Amino acid sequence: MRTILSIAGSDSSGGAGIQADLKTFAALGHYGTSVVTALTAQNTIGVQGIHGVPPQFIEQQIHSVLNDLDVHAIKTGMLFDAENTRATIRALKDHYCGDRVMPPLVCDPVCVSTSGHTLLAPDAVQVLIQDLFPLTTLITPNKSESELLLSRAINSLEDMLSAASDLLRLGPRAVLLKGGHMTATLADLDSLARAHPEVRMLRDGLYGDNMEILAINGPQPGELVVDVLCEADGSMTVLARPRIDSSSTHGTGCTLSAALASALAGGSTLSDAVISATAYTHLGIETAPKIGAGHGPLNHLHSVTQMGIPPRTPGNPYPFTRLLISGSAAIWKEYVEHGFVQQLGKGTLSQTSFVHFIKQDYHYLKYYARAYSLLAAKSASFARIDAATQTIGHILREITTHRAFCAEFGVSADELEATAESSATTAYGCYLMDVGIQGDATKLLMALLACLLGYGEVGLWLKSAAERAGSGVALAGNPYRRWIEDYSGAEYQAAVRAGLETIEAVAAADPPSPARLSEWRAVWERCTRLEKAFWDAALDDQVFHFPKYTRGCL
Amino acid sequence: MRTILSIAGSDSSGGAGIQADLKTFAALGHYGTSVVTALTAQNTIGVQGIHGVPPQFIEQQIHSVLNDLDVHAIKTGMLFDAENTRATIRALKDHYCGDRVMPPLVCDPVCVSTSGHTLLAPDAVQVLIQDLFPLTTLITPNKSESELLLSRAINSLEDMLSAASDLLRLGPRAVLLKGGHMTATLADLDSLARAHPEVRMLRDGLYGDNMEILAINGPQPGELVVDVLCEADGSMTVLARPRIDSSSTHGTGCTLSAALASALAGGSTLSDAVISATAYTHLGIETAPKIGAGHGPLNHLHSVTQMGIPPRTPGNPYPFTRLLISGSAAIWKEYVEHGFVQQLGKGTLSQTSFVHFIKQDYHYLKYYARAYSLLAAKSASFARIDAATQTIGHILREITTHRAFCAEFGVSADELEATAESSATTAYGCYLMDVGIQGDATKLLMALLACLLGYGEVGLWLKSAAERAGSGVALAGNPYRRWIEDYSGAEYQAAVRAGLETIEAVAAADPPSPARLSEWRAVWERCTRLEKAFWDAALDDQVFHFPKYTRGCL
Repeated sequence: MRTILSIAGSDSSGGAGIQADLKTFAALGHYGTSVVTALTAQNTIGVQGIHGVPPQFIEQQIHSVLNDLDVHAIKTGMLFDAENTRATIRALKDHYCGDRVMPPLVCDPVCVSTSGHTLLAPDAVQVLIQDLFPLTTLITPNKSESELLLSRAINSLEDMLSAASDLLRLGPRAVLLKGGHMTATLADLDSLARAHPEVRMLRDGLYGDNMEILAINGPQPGELVVDVLCEADGSMTVLARPRIDSSSTHGTGCTLSAALASALAGGSTLSDAVISATAYTHLGIETAPKIGAGHGPLNHLHSVTQMGIPPRTPGNPYPFTRLLISGSAAIWKEYVEHGFVQQLGKGTLSQTSFVHFIKQDYHYLKYYARAYSLLAAKSASFARIDAATQTIGHILREITTHRAFCAEFGVSADELEATAESSATTAYGCYLMDVGIQGDATKLLMALLACLLGYGEVGLWLKSAAERAGSGVALAGNPYRRWIEDYSGAEYQAAVRAGLETIEAVAAADPPSPARLSEWRAVWERCTRLEKAFWDAALDDQVFHFPKYTRGCL
Repeated sequence: MRTILSIAGSDSSGGAGIQADLKTFAALGHYGTSVVTALTAQNTIGVQGIHGVPPQFIEQQIHSVLNDLDVHAIKTGMLFDAENTRATIRALKDHYCGDRVMPPLVCDPVCVSTSGHTLLAPDAVQVLIQDLFPLTTLITPNKSESELLLSRAINSLEDMLSAASDLLRLGPRAVLLKGGHMTATLADLDSLARAHPEVRMLRDGLYGDNMEILAINGPQPGELVVDVLCEADGSMTVLARPRIDSSSTHGTGCTLSAALASALAGGSTLSDAVISATAYTHLGIETAPKIGAGHGPLNHLHSVTQMGIPPRTPGNPYPFTRLLISGSAAIWKEYVEHGFVQQLGKGTLSQTSFVHFIKQDYHYLKYYARAYSLLAAKSASFARIDAATQTIGHILREITTHRAFCAEFGVSADELEATAESSATTAYGCYLMDVGIQGDATKLLMALLACLLGYGEVGLWLKSAAERAGSGVALAGNPYRRWIEDYSGAEYQAAVRAGLETIEAVAAADPPSPARLSEWRAVWERCTRLEKAFWDAALDDQVFHFPKYTRGCL
């Protein structure tokens, strides 16, 4: 993010002037500041009024900005009249003296609006040339402004080349002569290239070599728009691109010069800046919404998209997990505060249900370990392979606990192995494998973490309930005490913390599109449901074993 | 995208006023317009000067905007003095009369800047209350503005509740009393909740139920900031969030009211607008860059990110493929204009090389078909499964052609099957399978399309060379004529077009993050290299068979 200053007029309708500049700076990721030289009452039809700002107040605004902020590029737009032009120059010269070096300065010599309204008093033109041009990195006149500056007509590509040369002699370090108000053909361009082999020809938006598959399937080139860049050493670059037939051109020049200042603030070379800025502006015209009855504004926001997940901050270190949990809050609550969990916490859970759960969880953990193996297979780094493999190690230790629980409750190793898989187990286990086949490592992680994080939440919830008087949850004398202590214990909670870090880091490193985010959320919610169903099945088994009590309730 | 009008002051340093508003509107995806009521020469340290805009010019600006643009929400900020406040009200009333209904109007009753500078003349306060408040959907005073409006002190949460009620009586349809200049604790909030069970309590940024895993790993709640929303029916909502210790608060009120207007323009309810706008503003403070020596601006751009791929437009229907090709232009050229292809086009390619290629390509196509089967397995819709399966059908027909070529060149079916796979074939084929295991359907598509599109490019290149005099490429008498005709023919080119459509549609529906985009580009470039190596191997085989000619050159 660089800081850029626009010194220009204000366009109430938001499409040109400092408004276009601020939007452009923002759309390109920069911090915009603005000194207003004149206010216009303006819309897409025309300019209804102009209020010039007193010259001393322009100076005051410039000093306020430059005395406090470190500015990386400046652009000037509409300067209104000779006095305001002089005030601008005076303030810039006042500030940038001694060892304070002026950053790149782009001057858009705004003289007349798209709608034909005079925006610069005639006597200001000489001030512009004599006093401002020598300070500029680049001036960006269009055809009519160039004609005014040179007092001669420009009617051809040849005229543009010589005009660009002559404009350079007026003092700026470079000239971008914009040909938006002229048209040319590919043939014109070819003959220009033959006549001027020294000129660099760039065809942006036209197809380059080895793009025949795109060229034959895309639009055929028609009229072209040609800009000419003349640099300090006199070297010329001609930039051609397809002309867009659009009335959404209000503020085109402002937008282009703001995009140029943005690129130069970021350290681009002049020609790279011209290429990226013209492409940005061209797309702004091509994707413009229809706003207003006349020449509508460009779309300045085509270069950005809304973020689906807020940034990680010290105050909110787990924004993505929070989104996952709050986005499926009801089903998440049914999972982590499940009747099974509540009975387990109170020690009232039937042994049948618990044994059902442990046996099925034993089978589930085989899928879970295999899914982590798939995650390792999908990993791009040794660190990720290591993390997945360590989790498999944890799972393999967890099954020892499961075997011990079974032994304690009279279930032999053979019986455990021979237990048929329930539908809930198959559904959940195979869903993990399916996500692993379908998607990438991140999507699989979404599926795997609902279990890891959910059991962590259950452990903490039981622990805090046990500490709260009247909750009914207790550790003392609870036959499932060990289970509660395992999941609320330091080792498991460290794994939860590592899981949180992983999921947040992955989402921050690869911010998802809305489509991808909703896929991730759907996987998470699906697993939350599968977790709940897993515990439903354990309680259902109780129903099955004690039909007289509860079957009638179902 | 909605159109929003800000009527406010200009802040040269870009952090407050219409500048903050325009940035906020843009960051939330809306189109901003602005009427300037006063200019300030200002920075993060203070306000160095103010230039009031003549009242009639404010009216003129408002008319210019409203007469042309369809505005979906309006916010007012600094109105400077009584005359300018009256002018604003007059213009709004002039326009919104008869059947022209005013859109939501948010009034931020700006009186004093963060730095302590008076921004509203004292005699304007009564105008604000009597004439503007009755038009507003929502007013957003902070503590000191509320104290000024009510002529009494506000020192507690209780005071805030009664002040919000009394402010509602001044005429607006709702009041958001901002508590940014006060602090509260969780205990204060709890006692407020006990005393006022009718008040809705929202704790944004604090952890809700079943988020223990986040709460114990995140920051512990300290001081809170509390806002009070009082709606038209008198219902109260208290919004609490953790206070951020930051000096980046310049323009906080402007940003909040602009975000409120954005949400209301989009059709949000008042309380949803308050929740989203305060969250946006809070994050702006929390992620603020250090700019300026005093109270720096917020980060307005945390809600957006740069797009890696330009949008699809009529002028550039294949922006992503263009990026892939131009991003690996040199190696892509070596692939599609490979010596093998050139010799094949001229008919000078040795039969040994061609047979080597056909045999290896036969093996490669088995991998290719299997990789498309993996793509089908990774597909989320029947349409995608169908597309992948049809491609497998094409491949199965393609091997018939390969068998026919072999028969023509004296290679029996048994010899073809028995041919050992070259390293180039194994590398390319297994790389496809590896991408299929590692990634999702899109990543696999990147790998598969370098082949489909590249052969399409080769076909078109050979065809156009054959039509160009002097290229040496010819179809007549060329032993490989059928091969050229196959890949430049309508059927294959239709498959290329379908591939282009798929890849562009996939990228547009799921715009990649920079990380994902660079992964996609890397896969594409890798396959381009593997394609080149595949043809290298076919020519190397020639070298191997004719050692005297060329081995010395290698």
